[in-house]
Amino acid sequence: MAEADRGVGATTIVQVGVIVRDIEAKAQAWSSILGLPMPPIATTDTVDVAHTTYEGQPSPARAKLAFFHLGQVDVELIEPIDGPSTWQDQVEQHGDSLHHIALRIKGMDEKVTYLESKGARSIQRGDYTGGRYAYVDTTAQLGLVLELLENFDQA
Amino acid sequence: MAEADRGVGATTIVQVGVIVRDIEAKAQAWSSILGLPMPPIATTDTVDVAHTTYEGQPSPARAKLAFFHLGQVDVELIEPIDGPSTWQDQVEQHGDSLHHIALRIKGMDEKVTYLESKGARSIQRGDYTGGRYAYVDTTAQLGLVLELLENFDQA
Repeated sequence: MAEADRGVGATTIVQVGVIVRDIEAKAQAWSSILGLPMPPIATTDTVDVAHTTYEGQPSPARAKLAFFHLGQVDVELIEPIDGPSTWQDQVEQHGDSLHHIALRIKGMDEKVTYLESKGARSIQRGDYTGGRYAYVDTTAQLGLVLELLENFDQA
Repeated sequence: MAEADRGVGATTIVQVGVIVRDIEAKAQAWSSILGLPMPPIATTDTVDVAHTTYEGQPSPARAKLAFFHLGQVDVELIEPIDGPSTWQDQVEQHGDSLHHIALRIKGMDEKVTYLESKGARSIQRGDYTGGRYAYVDTTAQLGLVLELLENFDQA
């Protein structure tokens, strides 16, 4: 069976992303209400390191991030810093709200091309320490934004 | 340690809910893009069976549901039928979009009261075959709507 016929090639949700305007307060509430340790709050890399693109153009947008581990799924809290980004669009259009679910895949360009062949649209891409991500707007197909995560091969 | 001090008493996400306007089309797309079998599409029970309440009042609202199993997490597609409901509110305000994450808990009334003590608001409750649910608006605290699921004790 051809690769594309098997779909995007991942069927396990590894992350749920939540856009928030006040990450310190939200992380404290998650810690308290879920009974989990307070995680560190990190800031994404600058565009020269993260190679962030939004709608195909380099973007200086960054975000503060905090992760909670809930079984196989991480909850990622995201506070946008400047823009343009899908994170900033979401906070402006919907306020604090669920943003995406993430799948871990192999072969980013191929998977993005596959989703585009289904009518989806790549809206933001970039690198993080150890890997790369792409947000693909699959709202018309799946009802949500899908994030693809790919760890770089180990040296 | 007192129960409330340990928080809501669950730290594993078991479900992600997605509001859609066309469940047949969306379920077909999930099946195709994720490479998963097409699930049955069910309709929630009528209010006399489901005991649906919205903002504390009985509601005739129903929904069509379809579930995909992605590891420990089910994706629940929800197409609202009539209202009032949190499902209908969401589709009117945000269109096709992520609606909630769900935790499986024990002791529904106690957990809802705990979340209300943190400033959250119970917006919709009801029964399903074998259990009960509550949607609690924890947007101000956690940035999203939380669903609590409790299976009835086995006879």
